[in-house]
Amino acid sequence: MRIDKQQLIQINDQALPDHRESFGHLSKVLAKKGLDANEVIKKLQAFQVAIPSWALGTGGTRFGRFSTGGEPGTLEDKIGDVGLLHQLSQSAGAISLHIPWDIPGDVQAVKALADSYGLAFDAVNSNTFQDQADQEHSYKFGSLCHVDKAVRQQAIDHNLEVIKYGDALGSKSLTVWLADGSSFPGQLNFKRAFQRTLSSLQEIYAGLPADWKLFVEYKPYEPNFYSTVIQDWGSSHMLADKLGDKAYSLVDLGHHLPNTNIEQIVATLMMVGKLGGFHFNDSKYGDDDLTVGALKPYQLFLIFNELVDGMEDPTSTNPYPAWMIDASHNLKDPMEDLLQSLEAIKLAYAQALLVDRAALEEARENNDPSLAQEILQNAYRTDVRPLLAEARLQSNGALDPVGAYRRLNIRKELISLRGAKTISTGL
Amino acid sequence: MRIDKQQLIQINDQALPDHRESFGHLSKVLAKKGLDANEVIKKLQAFQVAIPSWALGTGGTRFGRFSTGGEPGTLEDKIGDVGLLHQLSQSAGAISLHIPWDIPGDVQAVKALADSYGLAFDAVNSNTFQDQADQEHSYKFGSLCHVDKAVRQQAIDHNLEVIKYGDALGSKSLTVWLADGSSFPGQLNFKRAFQRTLSSLQEIYAGLPADWKLFVEYKPYEPNFYSTVIQDWGSSHMLADKLGDKAYSLVDLGHHLPNTNIEQIVATLMMVGKLGGFHFNDSKYGDDDLTVGALKPYQLFLIFNELVDGMEDPTSTNPYPAWMIDASHNLKDPMEDLLQSLEAIKLAYAQALLVDRAALEEARENNDPSLAQEILQNAYRTDVRPLLAEARLQSNGALDPVGAYRRLNIRKELISLRGAKTISTGL
Amino acid sequence: MRIDKQQLIQINDQALPDHRESFGHLSKVLAKKGLDANEVIKKLQAFQVAIPSWALGTGGTRFGRFSTGGEPGTLEDKIGDVGLLHQLSQSAGAISLHIPWDIPGDVQAVKALADSYGLAFDAVNSNTFQDQADQEHSYKFGSLCHVDKAVRQQAIDHNLEVIKYGDALGSKSLTVWLADGSSFPGQLNFKRAFQRTLSSLQEIYAGLPADWKLFVEYKPYEPNFYSTVIQDWGSSHMLADKLGDKAYSLVDLGHHLPNTNIEQIVATLMMVGKLGGFHFNDSKYGDDDLTVGALKPYQLFLIFNELVDGMEDPTSTNPYPAWMIDASHNLKDPMEDLLQSLEAIKLAYAQALLVDRAALEEARENNDPSLAQEILQNAYRTDVRPLLAEARLQSNGALDPVGAYRRLNIRKELISLRGAKTISTGL
Amino acid sequence: MRIDKQQLIQINDQALPDHRESFGHLSKVLAKKGLDANEVIKKLQAFQVAIPSWALGTGGTRFGRFSTGGEPGTLEDKIGDVGLLHQLSQSAGAISLHIPWDIPGDVQAVKALADSYGLAFDAVNSNTFQDQADQEHSYKFGSLCHVDKAVRQQAIDHNLEVIKYGDALGSKSLTVWLADGSSFPGQLNFKRAFQRTLSSLQEIYAGLPADWKLFVEYKPYEPNFYSTVIQDWGSSHMLADKLGDKAYSLVDLGHHLPNTNIEQIVATLMMVGKLGGFHFNDSKYGDDDLTVGALKPYQLFLIFNELVDGMEDPTSTNPYPAWMIDASHNLKDPMEDLLQSLEAIKLAYAQALLVDRAALEEARENNDPSLAQEILQNAYRTDVRPLLAEARLQSNGALDPVGAYRRLNIRKELISLRGAKTISTGL
Repeated sequence: MRIDKQQLIQINDQALPDHRESFGHLSKVLAKKGLDANEVIKKLQAFQVAIPSWALGTGGTRFGRFSTGGEPGTLEDKIGDVGLLHQLSQSAGAISLHIPWDIPGDVQAVKALADSYGLAFDAVNSNTFQDQADQEHSYKFGSLCHVDKAVRQQAIDHNLEVIKYGDALGSKSLTVWLADGSSFPGQLNFKRAFQRTLSSLQEIYAGLPADWKLFVEYKPYEPNFYSTVIQDWGSSHMLADKLGDKAYSLVDLGHHLPNTNIEQIVATLMMVGKLGGFHFNDSKYGDDDLTVGALKPYQLFLIFNELVDGMEDPTSTNPYPAWMIDASHNLKDPMEDLLQSLEAIKLAYAQALLVDRAALEEARENNDPSLAQEILQNAYRTDVRPLLAEARLQSNGALDPVGAYRRLNIRKELISLRGAKTISTGL
Repeated sequence: MRIDKQQLIQINDQALPDHRESFGHLSKVLAKKGLDANEVIKKLQAFQVAIPSWALGTGGTRFGRFSTGGEPGTLEDKIGDVGLLHQLSQSAGAISLHIPWDIPGDVQAVKALADSYGLAFDAVNSNTFQDQADQEHSYKFGSLCHVDKAVRQQAIDHNLEVIKYGDALGSKSLTVWLADGSSFPGQLNFKRAFQRTLSSLQEIYAGLPADWKLFVEYKPYEPNFYSTVIQDWGSSHMLADKLGDKAYSLVDLGHHLPNTNIEQIVATLMMVGKLGGFHFNDSKYGDDDLTVGALKPYQLFLIFNELVDGMEDPTSTNPYPAWMIDASHNLKDPMEDLLQSLEAIKLAYAQALLVDRAALEEARENNDPSLAQEILQNAYRTDVRPLLAEARLQSNGALDPVGAYRRLNIRKELISLRGAKTISTGL
Repeated sequence: MRIDKQQLIQINDQALPDHRESFGHLSKVLAKKGLDANEVIKKLQAFQVAIPSWALGTGGTRFGRFSTGGEPGTLEDKIGDVGLLHQLSQSAGAISLHIPWDIPGDVQAVKALADSYGLAFDAVNSNTFQDQADQEHSYKFGSLCHVDKAVRQQAIDHNLEVIKYGDALGSKSLTVWLADGSSFPGQLNFKRAFQRTLSSLQEIYAGLPADWKLFVEYKPYEPNFYSTVIQDWGSSHMLADKLGDKAYSLVDLGHHLPNTNIEQIVATLMMVGKLGGFHFNDSKYGDDDLTVGALKPYQLFLIFNELVDGMEDPTSTNPYPAWMIDASHNLKDPMEDLLQSLEAIKLAYAQALLVDRAALEEARENNDPSLAQEILQNAYRTDVRPLLAEARLQSNGALDPVGAYRRLNIRKELISLRGAKTISTGL
Repeated sequence: MRIDKQQLIQINDQALPDHRESFGHLSKVLAKKGLDANEVIKKLQAFQVAIPSWALGTGGTRFGRFSTGGEPGTLEDKIGDVGLLHQLSQSAGAISLHIPWDIPGDVQAVKALADSYGLAFDAVNSNTFQDQADQEHSYKFGSLCHVDKAVRQQAIDHNLEVIKYGDALGSKSLTVWLADGSSFPGQLNFKRAFQRTLSSLQEIYAGLPADWKLFVEYKPYEPNFYSTVIQDWGSSHMLADKLGDKAYSLVDLGHHLPNTNIEQIVATLMMVGKLGGFHFNDSKYGDDDLTVGALKPYQLFLIFNELVDGMEDPTSTNPYPAWMIDASHNLKDPMEDLLQSLEAIKLAYAQALLVDRAALEEARENNDPSLAQEILQNAYRTDVRPLLAEARLQSNGALDPVGAYRRLNIRKELISLRGAKTISTGL
């Protein structure tokens, strides 16, 4: 389905007077601080976040899964759902596919469909943490790290195949997340598992097209509960470093031990030019995969503060990172969850853009933590929602995406199209 | 299947000379400290741990599930598997059922079958964290805490039905574990959710037979990722206290925040006579449900040190607790995992029985932490495996249960009986 | 020292036009939502937070302490510093004393001095976690829980003496925080330690004036590193419950294990009418005692959301809680740190006051977590700083307290008055 | 003081018959498994752990410090105390100095004194986390990372001076632990702080004698509470890698976030030949600096399992690591605490030496986690105390070091020599 543009304009129109007033006030306040609201808006408009195909359906836990109706059952449906998100938010201009679930049948048709929604194909994701029905070897005891070369080869081949599909669609990067690890002390030879993983990644890396990047994700635990082969950024960086210039680390917000200073990891990786991508979500306990900004919005702002610092530094060697939401929606309508996540990401980005960096560096040079905090919090406490709304308005999106989604009865529409019992594939 | 007694004797016989020597040495060492090995052995023999029916199959995570073959598909199969565990270990003399999966057809036949293996029926477990196919109301947003009285009533009725099944089989307690909670700030009114839960539990409590106990389990998170209605022992105790004399808290080792001092919770609950039961497992990160003793055997010993202190205190008002393993086996053969868990539990129990309590109290009175540590570690560092082996030997179990299980090719046998693709029910 | 009122007016005047505009805009926005800015302002003005006397000097860690100059050396100086904070912020209308460091010499003079600054005497704090030079018995191995009755008696007597001092000054509550616990497994008999603590508290409780309250604080660890006698809210509540109607739990934000859902604890304690007081601070790792709101401002808002819910509930039996900042300032000027903390507290309070509670409850009744989140975040994302500024302005405080503090060169002034090397007493 | 050899022999003699019997039994058990007890004993005898000079006195927390009497006030006293520990345990054959507290006056006399106790000088430790009375610049806002080059230079010069002292005494390595970091978001520019630290370390590295090593320690937090410049092994490794072949990472057990898999870090660093040293201690919550093995003895064993794997691998490029205890003794007699720590370290080492590595690798190749666990736990559950006792006996140490220490009334003796109020220097 596609949203009728006139309907969206009508919905926006009702909120327009209040928006104009708030935006006008904010623009004046920013102007007094030497900030041009339009410059911020341009950056907000340029900031696009990929939606992974698996996030369009209801997620679950090992204790159960409670589906929402109208979930997308095909790649075309998934592209359609991201199209809806993008039309409303003007922020979700890409889709990130998960193979084997999203293998395109007719590549040209799929590309044309995505194009019709203004969507690009972001990083493609391989999957070696589940066994598929027709699979020769099991990944129960690992994939790229497996003791058996045949299993490793199967996983390598799968990744090479994923690159092939991605290449056909116009993707430019491969994200490798490995569940490989162990659940019991003694189970794994840490060193050999690392070496085997490196060796497998080298074979995949060799198959990468010249203009592609390889993202090496890390995670401390789950689904394995004692060790993970790529347990932290240090391990990921060691691999990316040994692989070569096209390999980078990928940071997923939920993949850290309690209390980790993630913003410092982001800064460190950007310092050495090796931050390739970012997976957004939020969590309180583990890799909870909750709506971005639902729990720790200030941490998200602090991370964006480092990202902006790196992105705006002309001397930085770090490439522009790939942005993706990696969340799981157990209770909320997945579409609403994603719209809320997009909003939270851009709020943090906008706040980070307001930070007075020259003043901040001066406070740092003066060892003035009180002032440094004032500077950060002045930006964070600013109500930047009118900037996001204006950016969307100028791009023909919705002033209030979640509100419009509800007013337009989109879920009801999807259920009537697809049925109340469809279950999305790919986790 | 049942193990041939002669075969087991033959297997034991090969290891007997070494065992006799080790047991003889240990008995002498203990005797010099004034400890009678036979007294310890009697206590070890009396200590029986219930096996939950769901632990007999391969568990999974939200990322996938890799089955073992030969899993039990029926209640009868499950009883048979516990029977095998008990025959080998002489420590698993009870089964704990999970309704709706383990509803007995012919109650008398099921009782007779269990009896033939020397098994009792321990606490019965209700299930309101998944939706069953034929269920009228969904538990997506809670069960006993739900905002809708109809959903609560359905969950209450289910619990009353579980009591009924348990009563027929000879169980004497109901364990209530609730997944109820919220995944997002704002979702739940904490106070009303608690009050509704209390009210629902009161209705269940009212249906409890006179000689039954109700165990209120707690857990900080998962499957909900922001709050759980019964998040900690304080909440569980508040409920048990308000419910009445037949209600108790149940401690599951994996249901605690990082670094929690669980042994102190155990001591506190026993102090007020409200520790009803215990779920054993082990973990490194969250509720990982790993083999007991696989990660933190010293913590397990410290917990048993408190349990023994409470159990051996003639002034204690605490009832004898219900013991159960609550683990999930993603990688290991479930039967081997359970045998290792039983061993770890009894090792900790045996070590705790060796603690010189009079000397320990004296060290405490003298504010002598070095000596107190020496006393505990003297017990912990003792190799008590010969005590466990002797206890099993005297009860016609296996000297080395995991070894015997492998020598007897039990898994292979089960696969040939039940097939390589059967999947156990009940999580 | 006292701030010249005219100087403050001049400083405010420069920022007044911008403030008027922002406040005007915000008032209109709120009015459209049916909220009266003046009602919020009245509540903000009434909300006063006590400053503990020890927070006026530079704190330290076991690794060292780096003093700021001009620290208050006497009780009179401390009252003066709180007076300055209150004059600027109009939010710090009370001081919380720490005995033995703050024993008043001339009670009437001290009362008159505090009165001249508009300050009340909040909860008094006993200290049994350090040994004083003239002390007969050591608290190395505990105070109220000590195995030796003589030590317990000394600690009891100290608490009774603290009540006496507080009573003379007009305090109405005693806060008991105990370092009591153990650093090694085995060191302490958990149950006896708890019973001795209860018994000691009962003796203190018996000495409480009729209109006083006793606050029982809890903390999981530090300075003891294995166990704390009152390790969590459950233990604190058990004690308060056994003590009687005048005893309450006190929540200190930093005194929780990683990932604890503190807002749920707050709600639970208020539900049973037993939340007595609150210690504000912030932290990333442990009891870091950082500036309030410096790390987790959204968590603070969620806590205030529960506090407001409880305070505004006419059926609640919970008394109005005592508010105190309990922070330690290792790097910042303590006065600036406290001004930032006061601002963060009131921001969270103001945001919580903006929550549309009727709509929130409706969303909860409808199991609509997306909408519940929208409602909370709409309040949180509102820039409420103009409300705080206006509240201060109307009370003759500073529009920008930290800015004014710097413009007025207060630290420089204090150093010239008291010297660069003075070190504040009381931790 | 020195222990009279005859007295020690007499004490040992009383326990000798029991020891002979236990050792004889264990030797036979090991022999049946193909293990030669004497080979293990030789390795145990060769394993020497350095004692840091600061660990000989009573430690404290920010909440207070409760001294033990008889603490060493001079470098000579400290050497004497380590001499006593070594005489009893035959395991503490080195002392690790902390400058500025342990600057030797007469180098030759100090060397001769150490030599008379059989002690070597292990890694020297610089100190830039406190300000000394005569210091020109303050380290309040960092040392090697400081924004001001003059402060950095002071810290660099201090480190170079430490090398000079160490070189004179025969040390061969410098350990750099930095408190540098920040307590508030915004305070520090992460990237510049890292670069400045690297640059400072390069200047220190340039001053390293040819046969020296530089150990770069890491720690996530404390005394800074938001960020630490060298927050984790990844950061430490990045620095060591950039510094050169003589630079290594140093792992301190207490310097990790909750739940970190430290054994995997150890394996990874050894894999790349970059594990330089190890600081032993134990903890439950943070950097608690408790007695080694007091909380998590199994984790210690798992770490030793990796250490032994690396040390016994002929293809490994990792140098033999430096071993040191880094603990703080708030409650126990420091000497007893250290004796208990030495025992725990060697127990874990001995257990790790018993692991059947060939069988373990085979189980790993077969994806057999149950068996891998059996193999590890068979080693861990073995009571190896007789091996340690025999190793000490053969080296003229005490069969039971803590027991002998008490029997010999050493603390009483030290108090009579040095007084009850002496306080050890250096933290």
